[in-house]
Amino acid sequence: MAKNNKTAINPRRDEDYPIWYQEVIKAADMAENSDVRGCMVIKPWGYAIWENMQRELDDMFKETGHKNAYFPLFIPLSYLQKEADHVDGFATECAVVTHHKLTKNEEGTLVPDGELDEPLIVRPTSETIIGASFAKWVNSYRDLPVLINQWANVVRWERRTRLFLRTAEFLWQEGHTAHATKQEAVDETLKMLNVYRDFAEKILAVPVIIGEKSESERFPGAVSTYSIEAMMQDKKALQAGTSHFLGQKFAKAAGIKFQSKETKEEYAWTTSWGVSTRLIGALIMVHSDDNGLVLPPRIASSHVVFLPIYKTDEERETVLAYIDDVKTGIKAHGRYHERHLVIETDDRDLRGGEKNWEWIKKGVPLKVEVGMRDIEKNSLAVLRRDNPELKKEFINKDEFIASIHETLDDIQNNLFERAKAFREDNTKIIDDTKDFDAFFTPENKEKPEIHGGFAMSHWCGSAKCEEDLKELKITIRNIPLHGKPEEGKCINCGEDSSMRVVFAKSY
Amino acid sequence: MAKNNKTAINPRRDEDYPIWYQEVIKAADMAENSDVRGCMVIKPWGYAIWENMQRELDDMFKETGHKNAYFPLFIPLSYLQKEADHVDGFATECAVVTHHKLTKNEEGTLVPDGELDEPLIVRPTSETIIGASFAKWVNSYRDLPVLINQWANVVRWERRTRLFLRTAEFLWQEGHTAHATKQEAVDETLKMLNVYRDFAEKILAVPVIIGEKSESERFPGAVSTYSIEAMMQDKKALQAGTSHFLGQKFAKAAGIKFQSKETKEEYAWTTSWGVSTRLIGALIMVHSDDNGLVLPPRIASSHVVFLPIYKTDEERETVLAYIDDVKTGIKAHGRYHERHLVIETDDRDLRGGEKNWEWIKKGVPLKVEVGMRDIEKNSLAVLRRDNPELKKEFINKDEFIASIHETLDDIQNNLFERAKAFREDNTKIIDDTKDFDAFFTPENKEKPEIHGGFAMSHWCGSAKCEEDLKELKITIRNIPLHGKPEEGKCINCGEDSSMRVVFAKSY
Repeated sequence: MAKNNKTAINPRRDEDYPIWYQEVIKAADMAENSDVRGCMVIKPWGYAIWENMQRELDDMFKETGHKNAYFPLFIPLSYLQKEADHVDGFATECAVVTHHKLTKNEEGTLVPDGELDEPLIVRPTSETIIGASFAKWVNSYRDLPVLINQWANVVRWERRTRLFLRTAEFLWQEGHTAHATKQEAVDETLKMLNVYRDFAEKILAVPVIIGEKSESERFPGAVSTYSIEAMMQDKKALQAGTSHFLGQKFAKAAGIKFQSKETKEEYAWTTSWGVSTRLIGALIMVHSDDNGLVLPPRIASSHVVFLPIYKTDEERETVLAYIDDVKTGIKAHGRYHERHLVIETDDRDLRGGEKNWEWIKKGVPLKVEVGMRDIEKNSLAVLRRDNPELKKEFINKDEFIASIHETLDDIQNNLFERAKAFREDNTKIIDDTKDFDAFFTPENKEKPEIHGGFAMSHWCGSAKCEEDLKELKITIRNIPLHGKPEEGKCINCGEDSSMRVVFAKSY
Repeated sequence: MAKNNKTAINPRRDEDYPIWYQEVIKAADMAENSDVRGCMVIKPWGYAIWENMQRELDDMFKETGHKNAYFPLFIPLSYLQKEADHVDGFATECAVVTHHKLTKNEEGTLVPDGELDEPLIVRPTSETIIGASFAKWVNSYRDLPVLINQWANVVRWERRTRLFLRTAEFLWQEGHTAHATKQEAVDETLKMLNVYRDFAEKILAVPVIIGEKSESERFPGAVSTYSIEAMMQDKKALQAGTSHFLGQKFAKAAGIKFQSKETKEEYAWTTSWGVSTRLIGALIMVHSDDNGLVLPPRIASSHVVFLPIYKTDEERETVLAYIDDVKTGIKAHGRYHERHLVIETDDRDLRGGEKNWEWIKKGVPLKVEVGMRDIEKNSLAVLRRDNPELKKEFINKDEFIASIHETLDDIQNNLFERAKAFREDNTKIIDDTKDFDAFFTPENKEKPEIHGGFAMSHWCGSAKCEEDLKELKITIRNIPLHGKPEEGKCINCGEDSSMRVVFAKSY
């Protein structure tokens, strides 16, 4: 708790969750809105998290046989139109380049000039432009599979934007693969969904439910879409990654054909899958508390910060030498899960309290104070950011050094288990319509965002029932992949249903 | 040499250098043109080089105190206009977004809709948009310096494009810093120029000349621009990176003001510096030979490829086990300059000759054949790609494993020394105008690209003399930073000059 029993972030989560979210980002100095409508500036503390996500995911993609490549930012309008559902899905929200220079008009004002013969769309996603390349690369079954990933920026002109969660421009990766058989493509779709689950759970410490989206929630043009869904601390769901089986639809649109072993000409089967900077939003909302950001060590921008405490120049020298000694000890342990530990020493000329709170708000996993008294005792004053009471522990220096990787892993596991327990506490099996309604009705009308959480209830599979519930802002998050078949009645219409799905309000 | 004494790349360098360049890229499967005007597709073998460049440079930037961040892709027209020289420099070649959606017109054709109040420019460079952020971030001298780098795509609508060397969209990094004093900003500009030189020479094995550009070649809006210049194998120069001292011009345009220690309001001093995927073009043109790409180990997409040779399934098992053994041995040596060695085994069902040539054309530093006879002798048939005769050496297995890091370093050094000797052989001190003309006059009129190389000659400093020579396609590459002052006469007009500059034809 901050002094006067106040928290460092105002409002608290229970007071106003959406504003709390914004304030956490601001207090941790992660990102800000720009003057360009819907586009954010990702500041160094936020961007470092994205860089870590990139490195971890990239390793996972490469281990599963994928290679990175880069395709044009611009998509000719005619490409986008090749797949009818696809263009319909993106036409209402795309940035259109129509000119290729600026010239001064008679009044001396710069205006667009050099109109293009065909408008270019700033990629909202790259199935069509990558498909055009695949069509060139693939001729024989020997050229398959093609397993490609791209790290890129994309643009979708969203009406309402929120830092990380929904922005006009965002950063992401998009995997695109082509296969000789349907089965192989389906396997790939699910393999990458599982990679996302592993990444979310092991690296971000965010537990997720994997499953298939309903038809209305499919990616425009996909045959089936799968997602990982996480519960935020306001009990709403956030779709944290998607993997699409595209069948032969995009292959037919782009002309990705190959000669099979049996020398028949066939269309390839394709997939696509992506996660974005939206994950940073999920990370914030799952772990942070009323004192700011809380970062799992495996994705943290920095792992340890040392705050030296001294009164004289002489003391300063002693304290900094002691800290260097600890750093050297930590570095001798080598890499932490393949990465170098990032260790900072904050020796700025700032009040101790201010400095302390800054690092708490930034969510660094281990904050270590060192003063003359600690040195006398060969000890360190350590704060684990996963401790909600923000209590310091005095730890023997050598013990701290020897166990630092273990401590970081312990923080990582603790955050995951806490998030998992929270989700389980707020997930209910509901069979009664009244209970269902009550579950999603806010206790307090002024805080419509507060409700029960995830309802595991039966759904008959009809689009109409899904639509009815959407009016109440309750959506089917996904149809869990490992759910057991179970007879029941649809929570909306009472018709027969064979499986429970995840109902939730969502981001 | 390929069979029949032909080379793997046709034409050879001495036959048609520009086409040779394109064919090397094609043969190594690095990149291709897309249907989008001027935009390239960077294929996995080319992109891996860019990824390695990114990692190496990123480490260097972080070691010198910089942090990564991300700023919007779109720049409002009004931002670009804030600095007059700057907008003039980019107005003729920028992609302009004018609409934010597509709708069907009466004929059912999709057309741009939702016109924007203010056109947005797809960033050709980000001084103005990043300046707007800096203006928010900087209030006091305590907030300085701000040391930021961005990895991004940028768009410049070039008329004539060539893979890697000049494309409408390219990938780059752009550093942007703000400082409290002029001296600090000048120091930063030169520091980063030196980082680029170290990177080019130590990692790419490309020797460069560092110096200041003449006024006419400055970045639009800069006070001074510095560059690293490299000599290609056709003796032309390629500008491989630039670092700009921007004075207070962009700070004044964007309003980056701070309160000094003496509580005066002052404008910050800024810098910017960048290198791009153009470096891949330089890398190709400096090291490759008539059999294709040659990659320096510290930037190579893969370091070693094993080609197993066998006749039966049983032999195959023996050969692959032997290769695995060698791989395990190599891996036990740990990382090569902080990176994992990338080792491939090409067991595809292809003719041996075809496979062999594929890897030669891809430039992998070490190609290793393993057959039953090699196993009997506990040996390996190793081809070092830096050997222009492509001669195999038979090396004892254990010796190969023990010395692999040394061997790779030796290839790296060899490529650097070779490139340096080539540049030195083709750099002449010229004081006579006739010699100068002869140096730049092609022997063969049909091959205007073939000429003498770099001329170190005197220049009086006038724009007119520079202009005169530009008509002959001879440009001042830069004014070397560590050149000795020396009295002389301008090679063009004969007026007094105090220093030699680098004259060359260039990309």
